[in-house]
Amino acid sequence: MSDTVSTLKLTHAGALKMLAAAVKKSEDMGVPQCIAIVDESANLLAFSRMDGAKVLSIETATAKARTAASSKGPTGKTPPHAENLMGLATGGRFTNLKGGLPVIVDGKCVGGIGVGSGTGDQDVEVANAALAAVKGAQTF
Amino acid sequence: MSDTVSTLKLTHAGALKMLAAAVKKSEDMGVPQCIAIVDESANLLAFSRMDGAKVLSIETATAKARTAASSKGPTGKTPPHAENLMGLATGGRFTNLKGGLPVIVDGKCVGGIGVGSGTGDQDVEVANAALAAVKGAQTF
Amino acid sequence: MSDTVSTLKLTHAGALKMLAAAVKKSEDMGVPQCIAIVDESANLLAFSRMDGAKVLSIETATAKARTAASSKGPTGKTPPHAENLMGLATGGRFTNLKGGLPVIVDGKCVGGIGVGSGTGDQDVEVANAALAAVKGAQTF
Amino acid sequence: MSDTVSTLKLTHAGALKMLAAAVKKSEDMGVPQCIAIVDESANLLAFSRMDGAKVLSIETATAKARTAASSKGPTGKTPPHAENLMGLATGGRFTNLKGGLPVIVDGKCVGGIGVGSGTGDQDVEVANAALAAVKGAQTF
Repeated sequence: MSDTVSTLKLTHAGALKMLAAAVKKSEDMGVPQCIAIVDESANLLAFSRMDGAKVLSIETATAKARTAASSKGPTGKTPPHAENLMGLATGGRFTNLKGGLPVIVDGKCVGGIGVGSGTGDQDVEVANAALAAVKGAQTF
Repeated sequence: MSDTVSTLKLTHAGALKMLAAAVKKSEDMGVPQCIAIVDESANLLAFSRMDGAKVLSIETATAKARTAASSKGPTGKTPPHAENLMGLATGGRFTNLKGGLPVIVDGKCVGGIGVGSGTGDQDVEVANAALAAVKGAQTF
Repeated sequence: MSDTVSTLKLTHAGALKMLAAAVKKSEDMGVPQCIAIVDESANLLAFSRMDGAKVLSIETATAKARTAASSKGPTGKTPPHAENLMGLATGGRFTNLKGGLPVIVDGKCVGGIGVGSGTGDQDVEVANAALAAVKGAQTF
Repeated sequence: MSDTVSTLKLTHAGALKMLAAAVKKSEDMGVPQCIAIVDESANLLAFSRMDGAKVLSIETATAKARTAASSKGPTGKTPPHAENLMGLATGGRFTNLKGGLPVIVDGKCVGGIGVGSGTGDQDVEVANAALAAVKGAQTF
């Protein structure tokens, strides 16, 4: 097995394009949001808290993005008996709240987006709008 | 009662042997894992995050190892009404997620192993493979 | 190299004997103290906050005990340029404040004691009184 | 600018090879060490605490690895007036203690290694031995 491998990485240009698309969608919906975009390692790449978005959603949106990037799938799918355990064992970095989607390009997870301040369904709608802005990204 | 007693301790050689066995088993299963091994005092002895394992499992695997070493038994056996309370009171160091097993040699707990990123059953299977590599260690 | 080795461990009886000796010495000196005793893994074994001892010394005494157990030597010997860096990198668990001594029996470090609330010299005097109560322990 | 770019990543095989080389070197030197290896995002990839290594060095070694990966250079080069400020602002994740080196392959930083429990120079020597085990990695 080799010491290093080639992999795909989300650029800041890609992350900012996602952010712009998410803000635009939220404005169209009339629902202010917190939007967090992380890389595949769950580190923050881009963020916007829109006017009027809930201040505690800064944290929930970021946790949603981290969880989606880590698990390589949408948040909200963890069985109920495990969701609190996962949140506790990760110091709150994992969350099962709806509104987190992975950024999957060419079958490879390159990051995650988390949206929070609306209903779970509104959050997912905004996250999907952001994904639609990334060339080749899967939507959910 | 005497001021000091003789006790048994897991060596780094033993811990690295466990790590290698766990990585090998995970590769054979085709399931990348985070694997944490701690001593009887719940301090980290050895760790590997395999390619593609969930980044948030770094923390859950470590919490599983700490919990198994502390309780001297497999994780996942705490009654539901207590599991979140235990996680909260320990700042997330305790977890009831499956995948943590104690390292028991000659009836004495010398450490714990925690595996995370697969299903609970896959995690336990890898942890048991690691225990099988330690001379005289009990499996579960 | 074998998977496990035999080692020496401080008992709770030994730790409580140290605690009693330290409290007695502090009473004789007329200086109330916080006294923390940890095992070789820096986990708390015994503790007393005496009437009138400083509340924040709960933490400094514990950090002194942890540091002495970890470094297997008295606290206060780290070069000035490194002491803050060590404190920061360990989340405050390391400290270079005087008043921490290792518990060394038969040439083997089995724990540490930290005393805080007096002057550095008073703290060391109390710690040494505690060590003198342990069979075979080195004093400083 | 494109949304994603190709990049290089340290594998767990590469990280475990580094770990084995570092443990071997430490054994040859007769100085037990804590050794932490992180990826380019400062997340833990591999770890070993050797028998007799300082327990608080678990944290300092990890902070050194994170700092080297983040700054893409050896630790210990930050000007004195900034080193504590950096440690404070990062919650102790940054450290200027010597003993952290970046893993640079083909001019690209793919991770970091941190070694702690010896003197700064011993720590660097072990880190370099680990780097020498990685195909194409720069040493310092």
